[in-house]
Amino acid sequence: MRMVDLIVKKRDGHELTDEEIRFWINGYVKGEIPDYQSSAMQMAILFRGMSHREVSTLTDCMEHSGEVLDLSMLRGIKVDKHSTGGVGDKTTLVLGPMVAACGATIAKLSGRGLGHTGGTLDKLESIPGLSIAISGQRFVDQVNNIGIAVAGQTASLVPADKKMYALRDVTGTVESIPLIAASVMSKKLASGSDAILLDVTVGEGAFMKNMDDARELANIMVQIGNRLGRDTRAVLSDMSEPLGLAVGNSLEVKEAIDALHGHGPKDLMELCFTAGAIMLVQAKCAKTKEEARKKLEEVIANGEAFNKFVQMVEAQGGDVSYILHPEKFEVSKNAIEIRAEEDAYIKAIDALEIGESSMRLGGGRATLEDVIDMSAGIVLAKKVGDFVKKGDLLCTVYTNKDKAAYLPVLEDIKHAYVFSKEHVEHVTVIKETIEM
Amino acid sequence: MRMVDLIVKKRDGHELTDEEIRFWINGYVKGEIPDYQSSAMQMAILFRGMSHREVSTLTDCMEHSGEVLDLSMLRGIKVDKHSTGGVGDKTTLVLGPMVAACGATIAKLSGRGLGHTGGTLDKLESIPGLSIAISGQRFVDQVNNIGIAVAGQTASLVPADKKMYALRDVTGTVESIPLIAASVMSKKLASGSDAILLDVTVGEGAFMKNMDDARELANIMVQIGNRLGRDTRAVLSDMSEPLGLAVGNSLEVKEAIDALHGHGPKDLMELCFTAGAIMLVQAKCAKTKEEARKKLEEVIANGEAFNKFVQMVEAQGGDVSYILHPEKFEVSKNAIEIRAEEDAYIKAIDALEIGESSMRLGGGRATLEDVIDMSAGIVLAKKVGDFVKKGDLLCTVYTNKDKAAYLPVLEDIKHAYVFSKEHVEHVTVIKETIEM
Repeated sequence: MRMVDLIVKKRDGHELTDEEIRFWINGYVKGEIPDYQSSAMQMAILFRGMSHREVSTLTDCMEHSGEVLDLSMLRGIKVDKHSTGGVGDKTTLVLGPMVAACGATIAKLSGRGLGHTGGTLDKLESIPGLSIAISGQRFVDQVNNIGIAVAGQTASLVPADKKMYALRDVTGTVESIPLIAASVMSKKLASGSDAILLDVTVGEGAFMKNMDDARELANIMVQIGNRLGRDTRAVLSDMSEPLGLAVGNSLEVKEAIDALHGHGPKDLMELCFTAGAIMLVQAKCAKTKEEARKKLEEVIANGEAFNKFVQMVEAQGGDVSYILHPEKFEVSKNAIEIRAEEDAYIKAIDALEIGESSMRLGGGRATLEDVIDMSAGIVLAKKVGDFVKKGDLLCTVYTNKDKAAYLPVLEDIKHAYVFSKEHVEHVTVIKETIEM
Repeated sequence: MRMVDLIVKKRDGHELTDEEIRFWINGYVKGEIPDYQSSAMQMAILFRGMSHREVSTLTDCMEHSGEVLDLSMLRGIKVDKHSTGGVGDKTTLVLGPMVAACGATIAKLSGRGLGHTGGTLDKLESIPGLSIAISGQRFVDQVNNIGIAVAGQTASLVPADKKMYALRDVTGTVESIPLIAASVMSKKLASGSDAILLDVTVGEGAFMKNMDDARELANIMVQIGNRLGRDTRAVLSDMSEPLGLAVGNSLEVKEAIDALHGHGPKDLMELCFTAGAIMLVQAKCAKTKEEARKKLEEVIANGEAFNKFVQMVEAQGGDVSYILHPEKFEVSKNAIEIRAEEDAYIKAIDALEIGESSMRLGGGRATLEDVIDMSAGIVLAKKVGDFVKKGDLLCTVYTNKDKAAYLPVLEDIKHAYVFSKEHVEHVTVIKETIEM
């Protein structure tokens, strides 16, 4: 078998066999197939697509390219959640404890933020003392003791994805639905959970800019997961405006704490209740989504969800006093208010622009080497569909950078807003759910 | 400027600027842009195509990536001819001396054969003693003395093409019309001739399998040449069946000698007269193609074309006695006759199958390291449109390989033939000419 023949086959629109996909991935991971052939193949896949069978085989090969976690020593049905990324997406911090408080088992491996999207690990690390470098027996013990742990991915997991993603990043082949699906699902499958809930974001701040692409990505991932023996379901959620109000690491942790007390922004709460209800059904902690939702509302109301978060922070070495007294989190030197210049409805708040602005304020990374300023970011005061009067607060910008550095960012944040004299509806955060 | 942004731009169907193309090619030749980015770009170009302006700039960058020959010290208008390759294509050996005998100047750099297509250099080297490694002053002197020289390309010419072609060969990006056009034209332009006649072959034995593709390739190359200041014209010629009767190195030289005596196969003669007439007009050795064709017929009839070939062989160190007495060429140990099994018209002789069979008999290279058996090949007795009776000779197969090796090849040669009880027309070798 020659790699060039496989490239030509895909380039000409034919399906690759399982054996051919295996030849490519195994050869690439071993270094027998060079980057320049893999990049040509990835570009051909970007143009030609892949059948569900092809993506499923690709995912399977990638999953088994390295270590695969065996979580069978953990009690209960392990359920994992993955978001395809967004701006202000602190869902895991709220949803994880909620679901765990209802009896589901959450053994989650998370990622770091890059570009305009934040990462759960970075947000957790804004809590002083908290470590995401827990592995092996400690990870197992924590999950068995309190039902939840969120840790960083180990280097030995899915080496094929690491190599392929780095290559896609520099060869213009990130935006391929089959390649995104295989990347996400190979990591989720290798992480060993029994059930997977996918949050596929759609809109300006997400990878998928429109519903058609988001639906295609969600469907293909749900099919792969089920094909490979995991109960996999998905929600499609809005990412045209940021999720919730806070964008930036410790700012989002504070919002997550509010949410766990039941006082979170409406869209964040709705996403957590909808996704959480599906996860509880998957974990067999509830028979129906209605029953599940009631349980979730209970653990918010009686403080058990918040207590679960406190337990998790404590187990991972974090300073719990910050969770009990969020006012302890350090605040940026500069807090700049941006106010409305006219009476109008807010028609759009561009999530991509807000995410990139937060990054430039110090709250995110342009490259993986950058150091994050945990206190930097943006807190919205209003959301799409809200009416503002001239002089009303639109958002507060937090940064430790000096004025010369942040002034142009303020301009870009203002440009993220679109106003309308006409009435504008609030955004519905849940677009669709896919439960097969 | 970042290469990944240029890949994304092309991938999304946008035109690259001249500056962007220059950034890519210069960076790639210097080793600053890695193979894996260049292969992704080439695959994106294969899918998205290039505008004439883009191909023209690409060609220009490739041409100037290394040495560019200055032929200004040569007398007269230098006219070059290039074929996009085929089976049994010995045109240069006939056309070159014909045109030179009429007063045009031919300073030609040629290539070697690979795969199913033969190369002019290999054919010339089947003449004992002849050297294609002539360069510098010796090359100039030969052209000034006798009006013609055919030499091998020096390594310093168009290094971008060498690097890009090697990469395309292993990444499934050979079959891109803009990339083929830039590859051919950058070499022709760097070779320094004033005028270029392109022979774009079309059919099973050629790169271009259909007229639409061949016409597109020819048009784009003619436009690039003229845009970059060279009088460039093209003929589109048939390559569904082999050109002429002989396929294989010394077998083709013998057919070329016949042709120079005026006894060549009809299609080969027609191609040489048509292409030659255009070249003489380009070289300003004739005012019209009609006048040019008469001159070409004269130099065939009076032996001057043949004498010119003898002069060239002598000047390049070849043993002229082989040209004067072609029966001196060594004949393969085995000469196997393949005969018709029924009364029928020949409907097709698959040039690709014949070319690959000739290669497997020893007459060509599968890889650039292979050594060619100069005497091996196939000589057709009949062409498409001919009527054969059962037992009539179809072709003779020449090889030094043993029976076990050549028997399967004989089967494949038989499969190259398609017969018909219905009347079949002879193939018209000249499909179109493009003269702007």
